[in-house]
Amino acid sequence: MGGSLGLALRKREAPWRVVGWNRSAEPLAHAVRIGAVECACASVAELAAQSDLMVVALPPDRVAPTLADVKPFLREGAVATDVAGAKARIVREATGLLGAAFVGGHPMAGCERSGIEAADADLYAGATWILTPTETTSGEALAQVEELVRAVGARPFVCDAAEHDRWIAACSHLPHVLAYGLAQAAESAGVPTGVAAGSFRDGTRVAAADPVAWAGILLDNAHEVVRALDGMTVWLGAARDAIACRDHNRLSRLLAEAHAAKESLGQDDPRVNG
Amino acid sequence: MGGSLGLALRKREAPWRVVGWNRSAEPLAHAVRIGAVECACASVAELAAQSDLMVVALPPDRVAPTLADVKPFLREGAVATDVAGAKARIVREATGLLGAAFVGGHPMAGCERSGIEAADADLYAGATWILTPTETTSGEALAQVEELVRAVGARPFVCDAAEHDRWIAACSHLPHVLAYGLAQAAESAGVPTGVAAGSFRDGTRVAAADPVAWAGILLDNAHEVVRALDGMTVWLGAARDAIACRDHNRLSRLLAEAHAAKESLGQDDPRVNG
Repeated sequence: MGGSLGLALRKREAPWRVVGWNRSAEPLAHAVRIGAVECACASVAELAAQSDLMVVALPPDRVAPTLADVKPFLREGAVATDVAGAKARIVREATGLLGAAFVGGHPMAGCERSGIEAADADLYAGATWILTPTETTSGEALAQVEELVRAVGARPFVCDAAEHDRWIAACSHLPHVLAYGLAQAAESAGVPTGVAAGSFRDGTRVAAADPVAWAGILLDNAHEVVRALDGMTVWLGAARDAIACRDHNRLSRLLAEAHAAKESLGQDDPRVNG
Repeated sequence: MGGSLGLALRKREAPWRVVGWNRSAEPLAHAVRIGAVECACASVAELAAQSDLMVVALPPDRVAPTLADVKPFLREGAVATDVAGAKARIVREATGLLGAAFVGGHPMAGCERSGIEAADADLYAGATWILTPTETTSGEALAQVEELVRAVGARPFVCDAAEHDRWIAACSHLPHVLAYGLAQAAESAGVPTGVAAGSFRDGTRVAAADPVAWAGILLDNAHEVVRALDGMTVWLGAARDAIACRDHNRLSRLLAEAHAAKESLGQDDPRVNG
């Protein structure tokens, strides 16, 4: 995420000098080599002392501890944001540390691969980038992060952190759980490879993602993921019963409602600020 | 399905003369215009009287009645096959009617659109085409249908009808039900369009398919679809409990097993006869 951001800013000649820091020396050296950062900092304190806008592109459980580490070194008026996939807890903790200067963020882009080797200057082009300011976030801080988002070709979308977590549970975390479950179902049924067609390939694509990392992502939004799974299970139960009863009308109605939902979600949402 | 087959046979200059029949005049005339058939028959009896190999590309509930209609007109040694997505019932009924001359078939290809307007000469290129002969099917009949399958660039895959239905429930019918359910889940959670990312797009792609047609397809394989849904629900319940208990180890293990299943299903199966 961080590597792609650096590459995108430099490729698009954004008006920032990009400096970077990483706990491990090798990925940081790699980032310098590929031009994702202009300059590598020796410590997070050194980075903080140079930064007007700091993007914490670390695993979710490292965001608040890292902000606590850098807090004493932050410049006057500096702004911080993150890219973690669950927002309510991080926003609460980070706002507790930095107050008006923190803006929660979540770019809706990524791929199955991670690390600096997977860095891609076009990762964010055309993507929605969710921002979750609170009542205490300063308008100036939000404006700066929005400027960053637009600078890499993404579209800022401002919403509440809790709302974000509920949406993401339904439209990102749930499809990942379903993809893993579908792969397991095919294995359990003894399906040979050549038999599985397009619906299976598409439905399991994201089961190629790292399972340990995804366990962490799902647990980080556990409350909303459980809620989404419970809703899904109720719906699947209704479909199952209609099938078991050979009730064509009831089943058609269920599928038709879902089909309409799919069609309407295919439209552009006016709230996405292009 | 029928239109694409005709186009493919003619594009690849297969050694058959392709004649066609349809209950409705307009799609049949369209098939002649685009060259999917060389000649349109006025009745199914006329078609049967001219055919050495008859492909019944009709909705599942029309296959056996149509075979009953054509039976009195079939030529000596003629072979019949179908393309329906559930096989056990159709194979039982059709074998009851035609004995050794019927070979159940199911090409693993298709798209969200249907009808002669969606006909595509390359639909079957590289696809697996399942064939489900019984103990009474003649080897000659099977060989003829295999020749047809290879003539349109597909790969014949011979298996038992009941086995086919179990596999298809898991790797085609289940992903369709999940796609509809996922679209409904996103709608219920109030997800705005721009927020849904790649995992949602892929996971719901097939929910664009016609819901009434899909209700019929699912009901046609009801027993196995219910079984697949029950298995999926058990797995989702296990994942849900691991998430609710914040049990990272248990959740990682579940996802890792499913991830391995996905990886192994990504390999080519030696049983697919290229």
